[in-house]
Amino acid sequence: MTHDTTAPPRPATVPDGGGRPVAPSSGRLRPLGLGEVRITGGFWGRRQEVNATATLAHIERWLEREGWLGNFDAAAEGRLPEDRRGREFADSETYKLLEAMAWELGRAPDADLERRYRAIVARVAAAQEPDGYLHTHFGRPGQAPRYSDLEWGHELYCFGHLVQAAVARARTAGEDELVGVARRVADHVCATFGDDGIRSVCGHAEIEPALVELYRVTGERRYLEQARLFLERRGTQVLDDVEFGRSYFQDDVPLRDATVLRGHAVRATYLASGGVDLAVETADDALLAAIAAQTARAVARRTYVTGGIGSRHQDEAFGDDFVLPPDRAYSETCAGVGSVMLHWRLLLAQGGAHHADLVERTLYNVVATSPSPQGTSFYYTNTLHQRVPTTVPDADRAVPRAASSMRAPWFAVSCCPTNVARTFASLAAYAATADDDGVQLHQYAPAEIRTTLPDGRAVALDVATRYPEDGVVVVTVAGEATATWTLSLRVPAWAHGAVLVADGERSEVAPGTVEVRREFAPGDEVRLELPVEPRFVVADPRVDAVRGCVAVQRGPEVLCAESVDLPGGAHVDGLRVDTSAAPVERDGRTSVRGTVVPAPDDDWPYHDASAPPGAPAPATVEIPLVPYHDWATRGPSTMRVWLPAL
Amino acid sequence: MTHDTTAPPRPATVPDGGGRPVAPSSGRLRPLGLGEVRITGGFWGRRQEVNATATLAHIERWLEREGWLGNFDAAAEGRLPEDRRGREFADSETYKLLEAMAWELGRAPDADLERRYRAIVARVAAAQEPDGYLHTHFGRPGQAPRYSDLEWGHELYCFGHLVQAAVARARTAGEDELVGVARRVADHVCATFGDDGIRSVCGHAEIEPALVELYRVTGERRYLEQARLFLERRGTQVLDDVEFGRSYFQDDVPLRDATVLRGHAVRATYLASGGVDLAVETADDALLAAIAAQTARAVARRTYVTGGIGSRHQDEAFGDDFVLPPDRAYSETCAGVGSVMLHWRLLLAQGGAHHADLVERTLYNVVATSPSPQGTSFYYTNTLHQRVPTTVPDADRAVPRAASSMRAPWFAVSCCPTNVARTFASLAAYAATADDDGVQLHQYAPAEIRTTLPDGRAVALDVATRYPEDGVVVVTVAGEATATWTLSLRVPAWAHGAVLVADGERSEVAPGTVEVRREFAPGDEVRLELPVEPRFVVADPRVDAVRGCVAVQRGPEVLCAESVDLPGGAHVDGLRVDTSAAPVERDGRTSVRGTVVPAPDDDWPYHDASAPPGAPAPATVEIPLVPYHDWATRGPSTMRVWLPAL
Repeated sequence: MTHDTTAPPRPATVPDGGGRPVAPSSGRLRPLGLGEVRITGGFWGRRQEVNATATLAHIERWLEREGWLGNFDAAAEGRLPEDRRGREFADSETYKLLEAMAWELGRAPDADLERRYRAIVARVAAAQEPDGYLHTHFGRPGQAPRYSDLEWGHELYCFGHLVQAAVARARTAGEDELVGVARRVADHVCATFGDDGIRSVCGHAEIEPALVELYRVTGERRYLEQARLFLERRGTQVLDDVEFGRSYFQDDVPLRDATVLRGHAVRATYLASGGVDLAVETADDALLAAIAAQTARAVARRTYVTGGIGSRHQDEAFGDDFVLPPDRAYSETCAGVGSVMLHWRLLLAQGGAHHADLVERTLYNVVATSPSPQGTSFYYTNTLHQRVPTTVPDADRAVPRAASSMRAPWFAVSCCPTNVARTFASLAAYAATADDDGVQLHQYAPAEIRTTLPDGRAVALDVATRYPEDGVVVVTVAGEATATWTLSLRVPAWAHGAVLVADGERSEVAPGTVEVRREFAPGDEVRLELPVEPRFVVADPRVDAVRGCVAVQRGPEVLCAESVDLPGGAHVDGLRVDTSAAPVERDGRTSVRGTVVPAPDDDWPYHDASAPPGAPAPATVEIPLVPYHDWATRGPSTMRVWLPAL
Repeated sequence: MTHDTTAPPRPATVPDGGGRPVAPSSGRLRPLGLGEVRITGGFWGRRQEVNATATLAHIERWLEREGWLGNFDAAAEGRLPEDRRGREFADSETYKLLEAMAWELGRAPDADLERRYRAIVARVAAAQEPDGYLHTHFGRPGQAPRYSDLEWGHELYCFGHLVQAAVARARTAGEDELVGVARRVADHVCATFGDDGIRSVCGHAEIEPALVELYRVTGERRYLEQARLFLERRGTQVLDDVEFGRSYFQDDVPLRDATVLRGHAVRATYLASGGVDLAVETADDALLAAIAAQTARAVARRTYVTGGIGSRHQDEAFGDDFVLPPDRAYSETCAGVGSVMLHWRLLLAQGGAHHADLVERTLYNVVATSPSPQGTSFYYTNTLHQRVPTTVPDADRAVPRAASSMRAPWFAVSCCPTNVARTFASLAAYAATADDDGVQLHQYAPAEIRTTLPDGRAVALDVATRYPEDGVVVVTVAGEATATWTLSLRVPAWAHGAVLVADGERSEVAPGTVEVRREFAPGDEVRLELPVEPRFVVADPRVDAVRGCVAVQRGPEVLCAESVDLPGGAHVDGLRVDTSAAPVERDGRTSVRGTVVPAPDDDWPYHDASAPPGAPAPATVEIPLVPYHDWATRGPSTMRVWLPAL
């Protein structure tokens, strides 16, 4: 795909720079909107195209066939609770689809998609009750009363996603019917959960960042105030204790007192995101610092090499520090999305290449791993070590979580497909930012950037790159204006030996941020050369689960070995890697040198160390590696990211 | 404690050799009863004493205060469902207490205990309905109908434990009120679940072995037939699918077709135990062979070095092969009990020292780990690596599962304390067996053995040993008869270099079984010297979670390092062991040589392998080790069994 032939036309008019997911009123960096940054091809361009042409329709089809969209019709027509389908939080998937559609319409207007979007909005709007409440699972005769199960009911969570969809629409197309619905929902929430109302919170954070964004869109300060109430109540043990403990929904310790992200990983990142939003809007530096410190600790101790978070299947939660087993990695796709949301907010608030590094790592190795190349099946969990060969799920049936299989078309809890869709549709907004003196590139993709600095200097850039296939990023000044400003480029933490070419001069640049300040004229070129060659990575020795193992990373991509690539389809558990020989690339494929040892056939798996079972040294073989995000796309296989060293 | 001063008097009359938990009508070995084997002191004698003097009363007290015993009164008095307390399966804890009391009364009659036993039986009996049904959670107005939730209701499971209690009583004291209750329950089950009845099974196996034992006690063949129906139905997908999959309750594949133990570990071992019982009583060699093969595979691939099974918290289940993370070991105490039940049955049916090895390993390192030295608090799960310092649970409150704390007095699901109690009270029955030509010693403890071979030869043995403190086991022929017979002694698989002294001759004996056949006269002595010195153990390389680590085993005991023993209370995660120096023993304590490395303080836990973080080599220290079953008895600590090698 090239930009010229397939990129859709830019929207004629876009409010506020074309919309972006997060629009803080202050902070270190100003996010650019979908009208200011467009991805024009490459790895992410292809993902956006598949998302637009396949995933959105796939999700819409499954929401219809599962009856989750029909729930709204049943509500409007008085057929609830009889005709209610799906789990308590099923409404939220419709809202996340609407959000994804809104971003996609902002990215690339399309009459058919616009029609479908409006049709769904009309069905949602018809289900809203006179006082603004809108949930298909509670409150009617025969249903549980409203707010009778704040721990597990997900009412406010669903409202939060509705509001986020409306925010996306308001920012990309202006106020519409959905924005009106969201305002009435938010007003109902303020009336019900204010200081004189129910002094509690939802078991799943999400309303918090949503209310701050709705405040940013509408200027209605009561929404911000309500977000503050929710954020300050949580952690004071307002919810019931549950088997997983109150840390499961972060109700154990107030957000500003916590020292690390903990509990359910999606809840934790959504909550922290709302906390950053509140801190920024209220200039609460202490709160911002607390969240940044919690997040830093989780990055240092509770994060997989893929950027994935949440190692526990039991409660979809962070484990203890350094408990990061590859073969029981939960690493939920939605937690990856939540991590991107959180680090993006911290980047905007504080700057810091490490946040953009984490966003990149997570996008390539978690969010991009979830969908199939066709965009119609997904991983909910993202294991780093598949011991039992994957199986092919029934293409016509929702599965629990596809933990030990190939990607599945839909889930009983289907939060991940819609989360991937809304992230991909808004992805351009994460690529670059601006400040008073220039533009910062955070993610590298073929792109067009057109913005104006506060003092009126126009900045127009075209980015050309085959990244991450190779590491050369060429930034060309476009437009017609000449001006002095600063171009900042992220140098990823792994990119030791990166080279910047500016003004014809080559210089080695260190990981972090490199700045070029000069008078830029149209046609000027700045070139960044990132060393994407594959390299061995080892873990902190406290990550016991991967002791004696190496991973291979190539640029931002984590690689893995799959049995389909091994001689005779050998199980990956026999792999041993010779780390004295660097990984090699040949014809665009990476491989390492090693052996495949035969599996012992013992009756007891523990032996005196003094008498280890002897075996002849097997022959050296080349072990091909593929990007982790591409695994399980070539039939059933076993797979591992962390490879035992010889 | 010595035998002479504190051992209780032997019961005056004991039916059938004093009772034993498993009484097959055929098989390689004949189990001895509590009237034939008595443990007179040592490690297990102390455990039995604490069990008798503290644990039984502790359990009874908690059953009262939680209202689980009161459920029976409420049933009899028509106060259900209003006054129902506890989970669906709460009745079973009362039955397991009764079973433990019955064994204890068989081991050591006690008038007060007898009175308490009878009082509880009377309360249970009063709750039985006219048709034999007896469950406090189902079937009354306002309760779910009987058998409306076979997947999770645990009705037949509770009946199974009731029957097991009655079997224990019948075998140690003869028929009583409880045996009558159990017969009526079993008759009700046969009437309800026969070929013309509900063609399904219980979500939790337990009724199956219970019905076979009741058949063995009563001779009523319909109980055996009903057990056969249950065992043959399971695996044909008679239960609903659940989130964990049908393998959770072994309803995925018929027992005779399965290749490995899988799903919920307690369910799996109880079911397989029932399968062995059925196979033995019906001479179904194919079924027996299938279960033995499944079990062998689980031992080889799904068992912790402690003998613990079930690595998953999520569903209390076996993980995939070799997924045995120490820090997320579930290793439920009850699964350890189930494993002992299963391997004991396989030993009786087939012989084989490896089964007794596994029983020993599991008893010392799982079952004995659960209770505190005082016998009044327990582990439900048995982690092999405690990263977060243990905390002290509220001594006055039931906790979920005490996964990350010191032992707790009671649990919301409190299956483990009663399972430990019934196992300890009947422990002598697992120590020795007989066959046509002699006696086999399987577990080493100070003991008296008095039995008669089928042809009338009396065998009387006194066992003197401080095992496992040291490895010398002295077997002295007691009584007055001289006869020719065979004494078999188990040589554990780890005991390389064991020595047998018989007839004054020393000979090295290999792991497995050593037999001494001769004319034995009173006073004759056979001496076995087992090398219990501590040794390093390594794992199959496919157990990724412990790559590069060693465990230390001393005799049958797995040892561990605890932070309370480290300089400055250092976290165990800094330990590195020098495996070039053998573990040493001094003054009865074991230690290894190693270092405590400082914890790195990084912002990202993965690094290029070419640039590992450097640190000066820390000083060598002695690292004390304690038996794993003793951990967390000296205050909060971190702990690990598997120690990274330098």
